[in-house]
Amino acid sequence: MKQRALINAGLSFAGWVAVVGLWPSAASAQEASPSPTPTPTPALYSAQTLSELKQIQQAALKSDYGYKQVAHLCNNIGPRLTGSVQAQKAVDYVAGELKAIGLEVQLEKVTVPHWVRGEETAALVEFPGMAENTTQKIVLCALGLSVATPAEGLTADVVVIRDFDELEALGKEKVSGKIVLFNYHFDKQMAAQSRAGDAYGQAVKYRSEGPSAAGRLGAVAALIRSVGGADYRLPHTGATDYKKDLPKIPAGAVTAEDADLIATLVPQGNVRMRLVLTPQTLPDAPSFNVIGDVKGTEHPEQIVVISGHLDSWDLGTGAIDDGAGVAASMDAANVIQKLHFRPKRTIRVIAWMNEENGLMGGKTYAKDHEKEIANHFGVMETDGGAGHPLGINYATKPEGRAFFEPVAKILQSSGAGILQLAEHPGADIGPLTKLGVPGFSPIQDNRTYFNYHHTAADTLDKIVPKELAENAAVVAVTAYALANLEAPLPR
Amino acid sequence: MKQRALINAGLSFAGWVAVVGLWPSAASAQEASPSPTPTPTPALYSAQTLSELKQIQQAALKSDYGYKQVAHLCNNIGPRLTGSVQAQKAVDYVAGELKAIGLEVQLEKVTVPHWVRGEETAALVEFPGMAENTTQKIVLCALGLSVATPAEGLTADVVVIRDFDELEALGKEKVSGKIVLFNYHFDKQMAAQSRAGDAYGQAVKYRSEGPSAAGRLGAVAALIRSVGGADYRLPHTGATDYKKDLPKIPAGAVTAEDADLIATLVPQGNVRMRLVLTPQTLPDAPSFNVIGDVKGTEHPEQIVVISGHLDSWDLGTGAIDDGAGVAASMDAANVIQKLHFRPKRTIRVIAWMNEENGLMGGKTYAKDHEKEIANHFGVMETDGGAGHPLGINYATKPEGRAFFEPVAKILQSSGAGILQLAEHPGADIGPLTKLGVPGFSPIQDNRTYFNYHHTAADTLDKIVPKELAENAAVVAVTAYALANLEAPLPR
Repeated sequence: MKQRALINAGLSFAGWVAVVGLWPSAASAQEASPSPTPTPTPALYSAQTLSELKQIQQAALKSDYGYKQVAHLCNNIGPRLTGSVQAQKAVDYVAGELKAIGLEVQLEKVTVPHWVRGEETAALVEFPGMAENTTQKIVLCALGLSVATPAEGLTADVVVIRDFDELEALGKEKVSGKIVLFNYHFDKQMAAQSRAGDAYGQAVKYRSEGPSAAGRLGAVAALIRSVGGADYRLPHTGATDYKKDLPKIPAGAVTAEDADLIATLVPQGNVRMRLVLTPQTLPDAPSFNVIGDVKGTEHPEQIVVISGHLDSWDLGTGAIDDGAGVAASMDAANVIQKLHFRPKRTIRVIAWMNEENGLMGGKTYAKDHEKEIANHFGVMETDGGAGHPLGINYATKPEGRAFFEPVAKILQSSGAGILQLAEHPGADIGPLTKLGVPGFSPIQDNRTYFNYHHTAADTLDKIVPKELAENAAVVAVTAYALANLEAPLPR
Repeated sequence: MKQRALINAGLSFAGWVAVVGLWPSAASAQEASPSPTPTPTPALYSAQTLSELKQIQQAALKSDYGYKQVAHLCNNIGPRLTGSVQAQKAVDYVAGELKAIGLEVQLEKVTVPHWVRGEETAALVEFPGMAENTTQKIVLCALGLSVATPAEGLTADVVVIRDFDELEALGKEKVSGKIVLFNYHFDKQMAAQSRAGDAYGQAVKYRSEGPSAAGRLGAVAALIRSVGGADYRLPHTGATDYKKDLPKIPAGAVTAEDADLIATLVPQGNVRMRLVLTPQTLPDAPSFNVIGDVKGTEHPEQIVVISGHLDSWDLGTGAIDDGAGVAASMDAANVIQKLHFRPKRTIRVIAWMNEENGLMGGKTYAKDHEKEIANHFGVMETDGGAGHPLGINYATKPEGRAFFEPVAKILQSSGAGILQLAEHPGADIGPLTKLGVPGFSPIQDNRTYFNYHHTAADTLDKIVPKELAENAAVVAVTAYALANLEAPLPR
């Protein structure tokens, strides 16, 4: 493709849709009939930008800056649950680092929920074939935002269902007073075929909606089978979502093994469990999104966001969820800074607060920046781990694809040349993409992501430094391409 | 090979060594020169025995009896730590089952150690970069037989070494008063290449010997990196072995992730840990080996043992270690009983007690049956999980191999046709094999065995029913072959 410099400042959005509309169509026409007169197409990126993108890619692939950042977040600070001292320490740390690499940094206040995990133990105290005066330990964790049992726990019979239909079929009479276990299986085969997000989506609704559904029928507590692929007696937390007008009952996730055990025993006879979950919901607390800008030279008011979320769950140290996303975004900015390249639009790094149990960072930003939404040129989030990236998810109008083909061509050399139209590129950027801001994320290898995500095993060793650098390269190249794109994106 | 009936009752051992000596040599000679006159070889198995072995194999491959047994042990009884109520329940259960399938059952008393796990928590209370007033959780478990810390725990600086050489290099001055972490890595690549036993052997000596080595230099506690391949924040227990004349210090195993964390932080600055381990060592307790005989028709006094150990660690439910071994042995006996085949020698099922932390079952049996050692024709143990079996380990004199080639030929049809000379076929049968009794075990796929072994994740789902049946087939065929072998084994 011929490259030429093209400044588009004066072109209206509608005008560009028309111009750009020609471009992929012309390409298709060329494919269909072998020898037409080549149609001149508008250059989307200047020759200099394309050259700089290649340099950015190469520098990012060699960078270990991102890995050092996530290592510090995980090892030296630790879990960063919203509202915690560690989350605040992480805010200060990232702000300091972004300043150190020359960004204009600001903390934007976010009022966040403050939920704190407590004791979480369970045991079967009655089950078929048991030795007298024994119990069987059940490994579990509280779901985020769960209410507590009494401090001494509660004891009740257990009923097991597979899905909401089975719950409804049992009805109030058989559910009332019981502990309900939703034994819906995360689809490991789906995950193994790189559809882990779909597998997660299918199973996670029992975490979100199960406790209220069981509470509605009079259950005293709700447990789910851990959402994820691990078979290492590893519970998987995550927020539950109580419905406002229904009873709130304590909610936890048992491991896959413990769900299997209970599901095997219940048909054999009465199974009774003692359950202790003592989390606390404290008053809302002040916290921050960390924002660092590489100011644009031509359109400083136009903003390209690259981001990850700084808060994590509290069981592990939040390496793949989502220290990696913050680190890849920081690394991208650092690479551009070190190369002394000046983007035309502003590249804004955001380390979001409270993705996990409230999304207050993303919501507050969208509200606080309501008047600048039109100036948000594109927003990117990395929140799918640190696995080898295969390309770019783009949530634009379908015709947006053509804008990224030159970028994909560059990224192809590190195996990241796929372009994929996506619906939901990221949770924190969701409030912006819902308003029509084009959204982006790396397509990441997620085959084992949900084995570790939201568990105690989400730790630094799950990140392969080379793959994190590959993600930083995708973020850096995409961000710089968006910042220097010579046309507005369809929105 | 031609088969003929041959009763060897009158032949002396020396005579048989001579006769049998000819057999593999003759075979080798045949291979070397293509057309000699065939040398007559003694038949090791009657035609009827060979026919019965094939029927036993086929029936065992179809049997789900073993899986039902291990399911009951794991799910309905649970962890079976030596000295526990559950271990006694398991004794009674297995005795009842063996009676129900027609075996002559006896319980043989074993006096066992009685160690009970307590609280086990740890946290880094000082480390570089930490947020004020925070700690980092360290996931760990006590090693079996560990002494306790004070109830409120102990707090000390942590030193990390890789191996005994590094410990010695540090010396008393740098070790005294410290918590020592042995960060020796289990070799996952070795395990992936089916040398998991070797990988285990290399790493496990830090579990056995590390605490005393650190105690000798004045350490206040010793931790090891968990021995095993899991990267799921999963601690791995197992017995430590205090040296009598050295200080006994509390001993635990941290997960691989926690070992990595500590090993990363220590070079950055001071790392201090609070450690609580409150296990108790109670007075020795009475327990039992469970013994069930299928009486031999011709040589009832000659005994072929097939076995697994009934005790387990307490973190998981002891499915692969070693409910599977007990179940495969029970299944083998059941298959022979159901086919109404009568072995010439006695086939004895033994469910050993206390393999994990004392080996008192194996030791007591060898002592109590001291006068019958010569009548123990062969002893087999299955204690390597329930993975697909590849053949038979034989711990006899090397010339023993020839005796099993007809057996291997039958087992080959289910993929278990390898014969492998082994040194240590099993822990519980060790006291017998050390006295010269020929020992056997299935060769099992152990590539992932040490991911689960001795952890909370050693649960029923780790057993593939088909593979357990394959193991039962190897045990049943080997046992019946030994029982009907027309010659004594070289010993």
